[in-house]
Amino acid sequence: MSVGLEHPQKLVKISGIRLSASSAEICNKKRNDIALIEISPSSVTSAAFTKNYFCAAPVQVSKNNLKKSEPYFCLINAGNANAGTGQSGVKNSRATCEALAKITNCKDHEVLPFSTGVIGEDLPVKKINKTLPDLVRNLSDDCWLEVAKSIMTTDTIPKAVSRQIKVLNSTISITGIAKGSGMIKPDMATMLSFIATDANITKVCLDKIKDNALKKSFNRITVDGDTSTNDSFLLIATCKAKNPEINEQNSKEFEILENEIIKVCCELAQAIIRDGEGATKFIRIQIFDGQDSSECLSVAYKVAESPLVKTAFTASDPNWGRILAAIGNSKIKNLDISKVNIYIGDVCIVENGERSKMYTEESGKKVMDQDEITLKISLKRGSCNEEIWTTDLSYEYIKINAEYRS
Amino acid sequence: MSVGLEHPQKLVKISGIRLSASSAEICNKKRNDIALIEISPSSVTSAAFTKNYFCAAPVQVSKNNLKKSEPYFCLINAGNANAGTGQSGVKNSRATCEALAKITNCKDHEVLPFSTGVIGEDLPVKKINKTLPDLVRNLSDDCWLEVAKSIMTTDTIPKAVSRQIKVLNSTISITGIAKGSGMIKPDMATMLSFIATDANITKVCLDKIKDNALKKSFNRITVDGDTSTNDSFLLIATCKAKNPEINEQNSKEFEILENEIIKVCCELAQAIIRDGEGATKFIRIQIFDGQDSSECLSVAYKVAESPLVKTAFTASDPNWGRILAAIGNSKIKNLDISKVNIYIGDVCIVENGERSKMYTEESGKKVMDQDEITLKISLKRGSCNEEIWTTDLSYEYIKINAEYRS
Repeated sequence: MSVGLEHPQKLVKISGIRLSASSAEICNKKRNDIALIEISPSSVTSAAFTKNYFCAAPVQVSKNNLKKSEPYFCLINAGNANAGTGQSGVKNSRATCEALAKITNCKDHEVLPFSTGVIGEDLPVKKINKTLPDLVRNLSDDCWLEVAKSIMTTDTIPKAVSRQIKVLNSTISITGIAKGSGMIKPDMATMLSFIATDANITKVCLDKIKDNALKKSFNRITVDGDTSTNDSFLLIATCKAKNPEINEQNSKEFEILENEIIKVCCELAQAIIRDGEGATKFIRIQIFDGQDSSECLSVAYKVAESPLVKTAFTASDPNWGRILAAIGNSKIKNLDISKVNIYIGDVCIVENGERSKMYTEESGKKVMDQDEITLKISLKRGSCNEEIWTTDLSYEYIKINAEYRS
Repeated sequence: MSVGLEHPQKLVKISGIRLSASSAEICNKKRNDIALIEISPSSVTSAAFTKNYFCAAPVQVSKNNLKKSEPYFCLINAGNANAGTGQSGVKNSRATCEALAKITNCKDHEVLPFSTGVIGEDLPVKKINKTLPDLVRNLSDDCWLEVAKSIMTTDTIPKAVSRQIKVLNSTISITGIAKGSGMIKPDMATMLSFIATDANITKVCLDKIKDNALKKSFNRITVDGDTSTNDSFLLIATCKAKNPEINEQNSKEFEILENEIIKVCCELAQAIIRDGEGATKFIRIQIFDGQDSSECLSVAYKVAESPLVKTAFTASDPNWGRILAAIGNSKIKNLDISKVNIYIGDVCIVENGERSKMYTEESGKKVMDQDEITLKISLKRGSCNEEIWTTDLSYEYIKINAEYRS
């Protein structure tokens, strides 16, 4: 089940990136569950990881390795998160990096490990290492979709996007993939996502784009308010395109590239929501006229994560009382509920803190019945606006998460 | 569906309190849905209301009326929350108080209105006022259970408790009722609850008992993290018992009475959780060795409100990874996950941030399979302990809340 999400269109190769996928038999079902991304030496990268205190072994290892050098390889497995595995988890994660380094003649710390799947099981190092020669042998620049498929867990559709732009007469390409559909709550990146561009850009500029892009995309989504232990986001620029180096954050070229990368991130972030566990609706929550970004987001997340609001969406029930109650429950200072307006799509359901006089249940039902819903909330106390994306809470979510390990 | 919750045992009359219940045909089903509590003039009362900014009309009216005098009547209806109804809601709520005042020859502000049910519908004032003569005529000191039944909404079992104690050779009785099973998240009282004692006590002392009792009972529960618009708690002392007036907060008598009232409140608060919407488990979450109460509660609620932890409980799945992830996701400062221990019942599942070496899936499954589960989490960074109570998240919760208005 997913909402308005299509199978990825044709993906563009990124010069300087080769990829491969294989099966290490980590997942129960017969499928590819391990992937390799090779990054050419001239590249710069920018990364972000989960802020959960309980962060998985591969996150610890990747963070450490990134301090030492730019990465040469990303080694990604699905089916096992290698989280809650303590020091032996770290050792296991390092063992796969070492094995790959040995085959490819690079340094251990030039390999970044990423894992996603069940928490608390030992990483099957032997099974993973057995696939490494094949993974290296099969590296190809045309394998983005296969890799996107191989890193899926409860995802029902692979998530991958490409865009191309012209910068000073040079074509720049961007291709990104992501996985994730539960344990999704932004506090930085919230899933695994790997985005590569061939743009010629400095690391300082790439870091800035990463921060801005995360803030406007993966940090604006929530499925269930749970933040994963393994969230990782990697933005790679191979610098192979012919554009003059982008080294000024105020330049037009920087802005063009940033906008394009943000679009890729937003599309992937929204894909995660559209494929959210048990999702039957894709919901945009737009907060208008708040005092600042933080209070807009506080209201947005209270509404997005209220089980009562989420179940009302499942039932296509325009239960505006629950929405108002969730807004009133956000802990922003001196909120005056009697000023709040709420719209579902273009239908005004609440005006000045009570049911709009123009509102009819039929018009509410009609707009709630759609797969894609925009909920607009005006606080009328400032000039800041924010938008986040979420899903409803359905029987299916319970089924998926009650049966995840069985 | 409820967990380990029995029909109320025999309830003790409270001298100075008379009650009655009737049907105003507010609820769809034929049942009593309106109740009256008469409080004798010598009484003192102490009240607490929802902290949701979006608070319902009856809450606004009751708060206002309490500023003017001690109450003479509580007028309670189920089926309609009179919330999100703006100024006309306040007017409607006042109209019922005025009508009752007229019949009983008291002042308007001596009537406290309470409502629970669907949000955003106009209060059916005429229907309510039509029942008032009957309600007044039928007042009796033996009607606690009928009133407990009449204020139910999604509750499956009425919630009522009595206790008696000896204080300086005088018998003191306490009887309390409550309703609530969804939109339950403590931020003060979280439902409707009316507790009366015949104890002879000053208002200052009663206020103190109310504060302490709330903190240890109704403020320690969560079903779905949603705080209602109508939550109200009233503690009444009719002062009819023969005990010498309790007027010292440090006295032995104060302590005895406080303990007894806390027991009543805890039993009612736990009854709300046991009857939580879709509850299949009753879960105590005990946090040990935190630095202070606030961080213990922060961890406790993160765990209690994680949909992933809740669905694991539904499935009797000892998914300790999700519990660790929820702990790691609580925003307390410098948490060292590698010190955390977790027990389900007496089974140690996590030791020093990873799966306990003694732990087996079978032992975890066995203890998770019970209806009542105690989850113990030791943070090992201080000496403060806290306990809260919650439920799992089942298909039934979704069903109840997706279909609430249909």
